[in-house]
Amino acid sequence: MTDKILLEEQDFLNAALSGDNSSRKLLIGKLDQYFDSGSYELIRDFFMRLHPADAAHVLEFFSPEKACAFIKLFKIEDQTKIFNYLPAGFEAKMAKILGRKELAKIVSAMSHDERADLFNRLTPEQQEEILPALAQAEREDIRKLSSYPEDTAGSVMTSDYCALQPDITAKEAIEKLRMEAPDKETIYQSFVINENRQLLGVVSLRELLVASPGVKVKEIMNPKPIFGKAEDEAEDIADTMAKYDLMAMPIINGNDKLVGIVTFDDVHDIIEEEATEDFHKMGSISGHGESITGINFLQVSPWLLIQKRLPWLLALVFVNLLSGAGIAFFEDTIQAVVALVFFLPLLIASGGNAGAQSATLMVRAIATGDVQAKDGLRLLGREVGIAMFLGVGMALAVSFIGIFRAGPEVAVVVALTMMAVVLFGSLVGCLLPFLLTKLKMDPATASAPLITSIADVGGILIYFGIATWILEVHPVV
Amino acid sequence: MTDKILLEEQDFLNAALSGDNSSRKLLIGKLDQYFDSGSYELIRDFFMRLHPADAAHVLEFFSPEKACAFIKLFKIEDQTKIFNYLPAGFEAKMAKILGRKELAKIVSAMSHDERADLFNRLTPEQQEEILPALAQAEREDIRKLSSYPEDTAGSVMTSDYCALQPDITAKEAIEKLRMEAPDKETIYQSFVINENRQLLGVVSLRELLVASPGVKVKEIMNPKPIFGKAEDEAEDIADTMAKYDLMAMPIINGNDKLVGIVTFDDVHDIIEEEATEDFHKMGSISGHGESITGINFLQVSPWLLIQKRLPWLLALVFVNLLSGAGIAFFEDTIQAVVALVFFLPLLIASGGNAGAQSATLMVRAIATGDVQAKDGLRLLGREVGIAMFLGVGMALAVSFIGIFRAGPEVAVVVALTMMAVVLFGSLVGCLLPFLLTKLKMDPATASAPLITSIADVGGILIYFGIATWILEVHPVV
Repeated sequence: MTDKILLEEQDFLNAALSGDNSSRKLLIGKLDQYFDSGSYELIRDFFMRLHPADAAHVLEFFSPEKACAFIKLFKIEDQTKIFNYLPAGFEAKMAKILGRKELAKIVSAMSHDERADLFNRLTPEQQEEILPALAQAEREDIRKLSSYPEDTAGSVMTSDYCALQPDITAKEAIEKLRMEAPDKETIYQSFVINENRQLLGVVSLRELLVASPGVKVKEIMNPKPIFGKAEDEAEDIADTMAKYDLMAMPIINGNDKLVGIVTFDDVHDIIEEEATEDFHKMGSISGHGESITGINFLQVSPWLLIQKRLPWLLALVFVNLLSGAGIAFFEDTIQAVVALVFFLPLLIASGGNAGAQSATLMVRAIATGDVQAKDGLRLLGREVGIAMFLGVGMALAVSFIGIFRAGPEVAVVVALTMMAVVLFGSLVGCLLPFLLTKLKMDPATASAPLITSIADVGGILIYFGIATWILEVHPVV
Repeated sequence: MTDKILLEEQDFLNAALSGDNSSRKLLIGKLDQYFDSGSYELIRDFFMRLHPADAAHVLEFFSPEKACAFIKLFKIEDQTKIFNYLPAGFEAKMAKILGRKELAKIVSAMSHDERADLFNRLTPEQQEEILPALAQAEREDIRKLSSYPEDTAGSVMTSDYCALQPDITAKEAIEKLRMEAPDKETIYQSFVINENRQLLGVVSLRELLVASPGVKVKEIMNPKPIFGKAEDEAEDIADTMAKYDLMAMPIINGNDKLVGIVTFDDVHDIIEEEATEDFHKMGSISGHGESITGINFLQVSPWLLIQKRLPWLLALVFVNLLSGAGIAFFEDTIQAVVALVFFLPLLIASGGNAGAQSATLMVRAIATGDVQAKDGLRLLGREVGIAMFLGVGMALAVSFIGIFRAGPEVAVVVALTMMAVVLFGSLVGCLLPFLLTKLKMDPATASAPLITSIADVGGILIYFGIATWILEVHPVV
């Protein structure tokens, strides 16, 4: 019985959930022990005291097989609630193990958007298997919602919204919402539609409550609501909702018909996923195929990571070969003054670092909408000013080292080069994201490694060019 | 009159708002013209048709002085609404111009959290000036909310929440919410407190509506709500709210008293700001003093950007000097086989790129909570496997170039070095973020430029070490 008391300790549970290994092991041990001894009631009790998000987290501590064994002990509504909080990869694995019948039951109890999400993650065989087990309405709903391409508003919206007729009164509307409350994602925003399901306006429960009971919905609704289209990018929808502080945004199709809504809780996930995606691109991790965002990083397969990383590394080899070519071109200069090689890594790295800084600032400012392609020229001016200042600062720092290490002549070369490479790197880092935006490409493709590599090539040419000129190096034969 | 029609065109307005320069100029011209000709009614009409967020955006097209002249034309509630959507820097400038009396009026009409936010951005003199013009209750509220350190839950919460007594009925509660609706940030979540203002539970308007009218609040409330503490980091509150899909989260102080709530619209801003901060750190842009996140990037002063960038660039000079020292150590080898320098940028860049990739993945996974310090060993194992594979792939690619360029012996050196530097870079990129987390430092300090610089030093030592060994270079005199 002390076991049970332990599992009821909030502190112990918090420790296990927040990654404390010994608490986690203890928790796994206890649950395994209950299961082996057939104490299913205790397991059920334990999970039911948790928020579904935490219950899902605990299930992830186990193998998908064991997690399935546990989840089968719960009521179907509870199974569904917990299922919704499982990370995508784990969810798909469990779906495979649960089998057609169990899965169809869980899927039936899900809300519309979550159902379509899960469906999209199943293999075509699994999809074929469970479809017949669903009701007609559910099948159509899945087909509709899962037909929108990934990352569009259509793919994240839900069709569990409250629709109102324009001519009913506020009192009637509230009564209707009260009835529909259990099945709807939100009752706090209602969407007013005509007989063709075209969107006429939006009204909040707050407005309905405050209005005098007899007033008609159409008189208090906002007749010009902010809406999105099903084919819009989910990211843009999230940005708009964040900008206007919207709790829910209506989504219409090509015929102006209301097809779904996106709610505030989807917005968090979209914003976070987008930020992760940009972050990864900035580190030269991207590529076609399966996404590694939106999955718990611990569960991403090594093979998938290799697929995301190797193409970029190989592509950058070619940019860096240009650096080699630059060096080959100046081989005479190097042979004559080998001391120059001492400063080579420092100089080209500084240009690359300054470039990575400005690219990082630009890419993020474009992503958050602070900066548009049109602002390019203005920002370029500012960047030139900043880079000149940074370049002079850096040149002063290295000229001391230069004098000390290789005499005043080399020091001049090094200082001039430093100014030039910091300016060059900063300009590349500032301009490339804009250029990519203009070409309708993702600005985050101007990743730090790419900028660094370009700055390397430029840095080598600048360095040895200045050195050859100032030191008046002549070919050695 | 055609002017007025133009300003009513939604397409024209959208173009101006989304950064189309010619539309923007046209819009500015028209509004200036109205103002100069005293057509204040037309200006008011124009702004009142906009969402306050868009109205604020249009104001930003003008100088703070002109924006103040415009805003004075509006009713005080409208002034306040628009003021809340202005970016921090612009808001503070306008506050300065508006003067004490006007500002006090706007501040009085603001919601509690926005009032405290604005207050924190004013200079101490401005604060002193407006305090006497505010009502006693407002003064105390400001003092309370603005006393929490930046980036804590206390600094982002609002005290405009609905509090309920546990013993009133659902019907009475709904009636109370209806009365309070105009003044509260949300009426969809209410917070049940005892006579000492200690938090007893949370109840949603949905639950109140669905419940039978006579049931007591304490019987339907959630008696174990998820809550935060005023001194918690805003970021953690946002993560918890996103995880549990909360619309509002109660915040308590040290005595368990309810002091405020954080709402979903704050969460978007916090998540976005945090992502920007991490993004910047990853590009080696950070430092003490004023923040550059949460301000429109176009309005960040060049001087502030220099302060954020120069210290990092200078610090990295010292890391890169080690590269120079490594080269100096192997000067004999270089002198003997100058062809080796051809591959130098390629090899060290590849190590740096692989390192930047793994650091990027780790830093983001730690930030989103996917990965904890405890997972280090497990992920290190995976990273070794991935890096070996990447290293072999890269080695194959460069060995062809090596043979073609400098013969089989150098090709072997280059291929072996490539494997070693990719492994070295990846391990540094993977381990450093963990190490920093263990040392309670920000993992994002393991920025791409830092990892690249460390990989450079390692790469040079590895390269010339292997070359000296395989090519059996002896000192040239």
